[in-house]
Amino acid sequence: MRWNGRVLSLLDQRLLPREETWVDCHNASEVADAIRTMVVRGAPAIGVSAAFGMAMAATRGDDLQQAADELKGARPTAVNLAWAVDRMLRTSGDLAAEAERMFNEDVAANMRLGRYGAELLGERATVLTHCNAGALATAGYGTALGVIRAAVESGKRISVFADETRPYLQGARLTAWELQRDNIETTLITDNMSGHFFKQGAFDAVIVGADRIAANGDAANKIGTYTLAVLAHAHDVPFYIAAPVSTIDPATPNGDAIPIEERSAQEVTDFFGARVAPEGIQVRHPAFDVTPARLITAIITDKGVLRPPYEEAIRNVFKT
Amino acid sequence: MRWNGRVLSLLDQRLLPREETWVDCHNASEVADAIRTMVVRGAPAIGVSAAFGMAMAATRGDDLQQAADELKGARPTAVNLAWAVDRMLRTSGDLAAEAERMFNEDVAANMRLGRYGAELLGERATVLTHCNAGALATAGYGTALGVIRAAVESGKRISVFADETRPYLQGARLTAWELQRDNIETTLITDNMSGHFFKQGAFDAVIVGADRIAANGDAANKIGTYTLAVLAHAHDVPFYIAAPVSTIDPATPNGDAIPIEERSAQEVTDFFGARVAPEGIQVRHPAFDVTPARLITAIITDKGVLRPPYEEAIRNVFKT
Repeated sequence: MRWNGRVLSLLDQRLLPREETWVDCHNASEVADAIRTMVVRGAPAIGVSAAFGMAMAATRGDDLQQAADELKGARPTAVNLAWAVDRMLRTSGDLAAEAERMFNEDVAANMRLGRYGAELLGERATVLTHCNAGALATAGYGTALGVIRAAVESGKRISVFADETRPYLQGARLTAWELQRDNIETTLITDNMSGHFFKQGAFDAVIVGADRIAANGDAANKIGTYTLAVLAHAHDVPFYIAAPVSTIDPATPNGDAIPIEERSAQEVTDFFGARVAPEGIQVRHPAFDVTPARLITAIITDKGVLRPPYEEAIRNVFKT
Repeated sequence: MRWNGRVLSLLDQRLLPREETWVDCHNASEVADAIRTMVVRGAPAIGVSAAFGMAMAATRGDDLQQAADELKGARPTAVNLAWAVDRMLRTSGDLAAEAERMFNEDVAANMRLGRYGAELLGERATVLTHCNAGALATAGYGTALGVIRAAVESGKRISVFADETRPYLQGARLTAWELQRDNIETTLITDNMSGHFFKQGAFDAVIVGADRIAANGDAANKIGTYTLAVLAHAHDVPFYIAAPVSTIDPATPNGDAIPIEERSAQEVTDFFGARVAPEGIQVRHPAFDVTPARLITAIITDKGVLRPPYEEAIRNVFKT
């Protein structure tokens, strides 16, 4: 994303990697639309985008509470969105400066959590990741991909399996694209292949991002994450969540309290304009699932690596 | 499939449900091509198609051994293919009559195993299935879908979750289409959603087909099956394989001995002509995986429901 002090430009993630098109947002409503339609996605990225939306509302003299409500209503699951908007509402000074600070803090947080996470990987490791928790999902550097980038920068030989992540194909379109640009060895698979490769012992770790982490460590993330956590557990492979502390919501007691967004059937039945399922078929499309804390080996944050029991670890993070 | 005594017409399964186009095969080579390119797929269906291919070779006076080799080489994993071709080679009489007999036997076997399997389901049940083990995958009626059809015919209220089954989308394109035509309540999901619905207790059973069952009960089936078996086990949901006895290969001692076909990268990176992944990305595409016998609750065959220990149960089937 780019911010020129007045306009927020977002790389349209729906069109990557086929087209690199930028969408300009001039007010909070346009940012909310971009979040809702997934021009921009990824919990930290939509948080920072919303902060710029609030900054534009302030500059234009729009109603801040109305802008806040519209932005927070754009997507329900990721807590970073509400967290960023509320922080802007609490800001008494220059909102544009605060949004820029948030942008820089997010990049710094990712680099910090990347370094913490990199220590968990061996000198040679193959990591499975899901969806896109990369530079595109954040202000920059990435969370799960931040860990991978930091490990590579520290001299470790990391190769990555990216699953395509239906229905939006964030893995095939975004993660594969990011890692390829960074010359990190990447293998693309479909979502349903991961079990086969777990059984073959192909993975040393699973690292994914999160959209909201509850006070007890339960974590909501892109649909399909829970399946990988079950597979990792069954094959004795460590399963890591990588997310900045802003993704943890101490006000959400556990995963049952996280609202799971249900998106449209068309996103499942249509594929770049091609209809792949019969007309009239019933579809379910939960966009996220919840991985229970007991399946999470560690939560990699910018304030260190949290280990079970998470209730205590999370309480300590918010104390300091 | 249709057989007029001279030409085998196959409904092109690559184009369903958007187009109903028939491909005519006039000799064994054309049948082998249709099998290789997945005009026809599904273990029993490719077995019966190959039998008609052998019948055409006999009628035309082509070299039978050469036809047999070409047909058997078209796809490596499903054992029904080799089984059907070998049976034709052993036939001394009219090969066309033998192929027709095989066709009718397959339909009858599916109806029989359907009735056995239907007894395993409650009066109301929601069943998860994977890929297409329906009429399209067999000479007719289907294996996994045969069980569902038989349960519905016996008055049970069955609803089905069909996962889309990437990369070929047999679930979205073929299973959803078949079940919709039969007015069986069907919900389409992407492959990576099943874990979420398992956790919610949505499924009473998983029923899938098989491409080859080893002497110890290990079963190869469409990629993604193993993941569902792990999920079913973790959530205490019965996991059933439905397949005629011709899918069991007593000469294959266990799953490690089953060759897993690796198909092209393009089938993963391209989608109805649209490129979805960056150029040059490395891809893995195993078309099948192996579910170990310990994760299979029962194997539903036309000779009854086999229960562990499978080595013994399978030995008994081949004794009788």
